[in-house]
Amino acid sequence: MKELKEKILKDGKMIGEDILKVDSFLNHQIDVDLLNEMGREFAERFRDRQVEKILTIEASGIAVAVIAAQYFNVPVVFAKKAASNLSDNTYCEEVFSYTKNRTSTICVDKKYIAPGESILIIDDFLANGNAVLGLAGIVRQAGGELAGIGIVIEKGFQPGRKKIMDELGIVPESLAVISSISAEGPVFAGLEYNKNI
Amino acid sequence: MKELKEKILKDGKMIGEDILKVDSFLNHQIDVDLLNEMGREFAERFRDRQVEKILTIEASGIAVAVIAAQYFNVPVVFAKKAASNLSDNTYCEEVFSYTKNRTSTICVDKKYIAPGESILIIDDFLANGNAVLGLAGIVRQAGGELAGIGIVIEKGFQPGRKKIMDELGIVPESLAVISSISAEGPVFAGLEYNKNI
Repeated sequence: MKELKEKILKDGKMIGEDILKVDSFLNHQIDVDLLNEMGREFAERFRDRQVEKILTIEASGIAVAVIAAQYFNVPVVFAKKAASNLSDNTYCEEVFSYTKNRTSTICVDKKYIAPGESILIIDDFLANGNAVLGLAGIVRQAGGELAGIGIVIEKGFQPGRKKIMDELGIVPESLAVISSISAEGPVFAGLEYNKNI
Repeated sequence: MKELKEKILKDGKMIGEDILKVDSFLNHQIDVDLLNEMGREFAERFRDRQVEKILTIEASGIAVAVIAAQYFNVPVVFAKKAASNLSDNTYCEEVFSYTKNRTSTICVDKKYIAPGESILIIDDFLANGNAVLGLAGIVRQAGGELAGIGIVIEKGFQPGRKKIMDELGIVPESLAVISSISAEGPVFAGLEYNKNI
């Protein structure tokens, strides 16, 4: 998605060789107009899928998920980070974060994913794929159908895409795929990953 | 706001005498159509204020803030919960949560509130007022102007409103004010608090 890549090049900040900070428009301050462009783009990319609900994860997935949900006319559910899986009323999965170097438990109340419901997962970043695999595990526990996986920014040089394709058999749709990070900044992947360069 | 009160009466769950769960449409699963009604209502209530940015707090404030921001055409900043105030680049405040019985530190990067900027605080709940006072403290540290305080659900039987009026001299605008909770469920406050019963 052209507007997003331009924004990343203009306002993204590199920290070291593999951390891209997009605090100024996605993860801390939020550019709501840009999120609307993203929402329209997700709706276009998933237009042939049945989507009954969007599932994301707190906190930074919530903004893009709720804006996108307006273009699908569906509710959003966000998985909550819990200290541990304490309740019989929730579906939970363990998710290891390389960025934070710790495992957290994410949970969704059983009431909010019904068996057979078509669930679109949306998240802000795809790197190692653990958050998406955790969300997909919750959908599987609930007996839901995975309608697709929509990602705002994918780090294509990390193994998330391959793990998702291997384990779920689903090709993630990423609005911007960074193939590598050079001294000058992020380099975007070609057409093999992304419809709109 | 009539639609919100009807939704609370229909789908809110009481736990004990003073906890209202609105997990099914606001805090875990999100009814995006209802959030749009809320966004329009906030825009109407604050139509005579200059608003340059909306400030909220992760995680459950984010959804309503970003949807509302569409009606103000402004960006959103959400305060992050931090283990402690580690950075010189952030404004932080301590916030005690009665629900969780613990103090957390909330922080905003100094880049995202400019001196003189008009900030509208939006949050999902007002009870004891500590989250709003923490957000207002961050605005004050940044030298910003507080344009107003918009709340989705206020527990009118708790001291948040009085504390905010005493400490900030600002009257919060709450879309639904619960004056008391009876065995049958929540009871809504009268016109003294709320324009649209």
